[in-house]
Amino acid sequence: MEEKEISQTVVGRLPRYFRYLGELKDEGIERVSSQELSDIMQVTASQIRQDLNNFGGFGQQGYGYNVGFLYDEIGKILGLHREHNLIIVGAGHLGQALVNYTNFERRGFLFRGIFDKDPQVCGQKIRGITVRPMNEMEAFVQENGIDIAVLAIPKTSAVEVAEQLVSCGIKGIWNFAHVDLRVPERIQVENVHLSDSLMKLSYNLSSREDEE
Amino acid sequence: MEEKEISQTVVGRLPRYFRYLGELKDEGIERVSSQELSDIMQVTASQIRQDLNNFGGFGQQGYGYNVGFLYDEIGKILGLHREHNLIIVGAGHLGQALVNYTNFERRGFLFRGIFDKDPQVCGQKIRGITVRPMNEMEAFVQENGIDIAVLAIPKTSAVEVAEQLVSCGIKGIWNFAHVDLRVPERIQVENVHLSDSLMKLSYNLSSREDEE
Repeated sequence: MEEKEISQTVVGRLPRYFRYLGELKDEGIERVSSQELSDIMQVTASQIRQDLNNFGGFGQQGYGYNVGFLYDEIGKILGLHREHNLIIVGAGHLGQALVNYTNFERRGFLFRGIFDKDPQVCGQKIRGITVRPMNEMEAFVQENGIDIAVLAIPKTSAVEVAEQLVSCGIKGIWNFAHVDLRVPERIQVENVHLSDSLMKLSYNLSSREDEE
Repeated sequence: MEEKEISQTVVGRLPRYFRYLGELKDEGIERVSSQELSDIMQVTASQIRQDLNNFGGFGQQGYGYNVGFLYDEIGKILGLHREHNLIIVGAGHLGQALVNYTNFERRGFLFRGIFDKDPQVCGQKIRGITVRPMNEMEAFVQENGIDIAVLAIPKTSAVEVAEQLVSCGIKGIWNFAHVDLRVPERIQVENVHLSDSLMKLSYNLSSREDEE
């Protein structure tokens, strides 16, 4: 792995490369030029070359990229060659939707436990996984080598739950609660702020209407 | 509204300003300096001033920002002073989770219809809204002045549904399907690619482990 810090903007584009390369691979395509990749992905060929150069290149001038190799390498950069053990906190609709995405499992993200504060939900099974009460969370994280916790709970409880998770050694938090968590720098947090995303769409709709 | 094009990076930060200003307002705080806002939001004061200058400033040197005014103005910039009529395509767990977020409604995003291809789901009600079959979607969009469609369906059907929506006059698509939609430029698309977000978290976890 490179020593230098890769910008989060570049990191944010890697999953998209991975997705398109996976599709090319599934179609049996073995080789792709940065120009062809550029046409499919609708970003410039120079951006593609620049992005991939952050990780050492992978291409040969005039020869293009080996699809399978590049796919595997980007997968490794993304950490997809190792398995991740996840828990979900919050067994509401969103939590259930996430547990039911089989795509995550295929990428090595394995849901090991589900936790909810509602006693009526505890004991129920979602995709074979029993929902457990919150007071079992910390021990479960430690005993099962959980590295990622998914917060599918309202913001009012997210801050406290995040603190508990940090204290029992979680490494990453995938946060769907509509709050910015304050955690030690060693903890990686990836936010999915759905309201923010919808407001961005709303902005783009209004600014277009103003143009018209 | 300003004539100049505002970068999507700046636009992407506006909902966060809106959220923090809303919290200050709820706490009864009337005035805030860019330095105070910077401390709460953990971005630099100069970034805050720069971002807000894109929209004409709002602040007075040495006097700070009027919280209520700035909150309202950013809300208007985000298009939150008008109501949006939404439909959701896909009544699975994710679709249900989205319909049940009362927060969206508070911001003027009103779910008017839900559509699903599964005949067994059609006729059921989610938060009082009846799930309708797909073949009613186009007429419904036209008759109810729907401007935003939410795609909570797998990528295999998303491309076709998006085409139908475009042909019946939708203006914006909030896309949860794991595919980049190719739609005419006048249609605004905002993607929530959950797998991409999880892979980004995975990258940040691995690159941290490599450092250690």
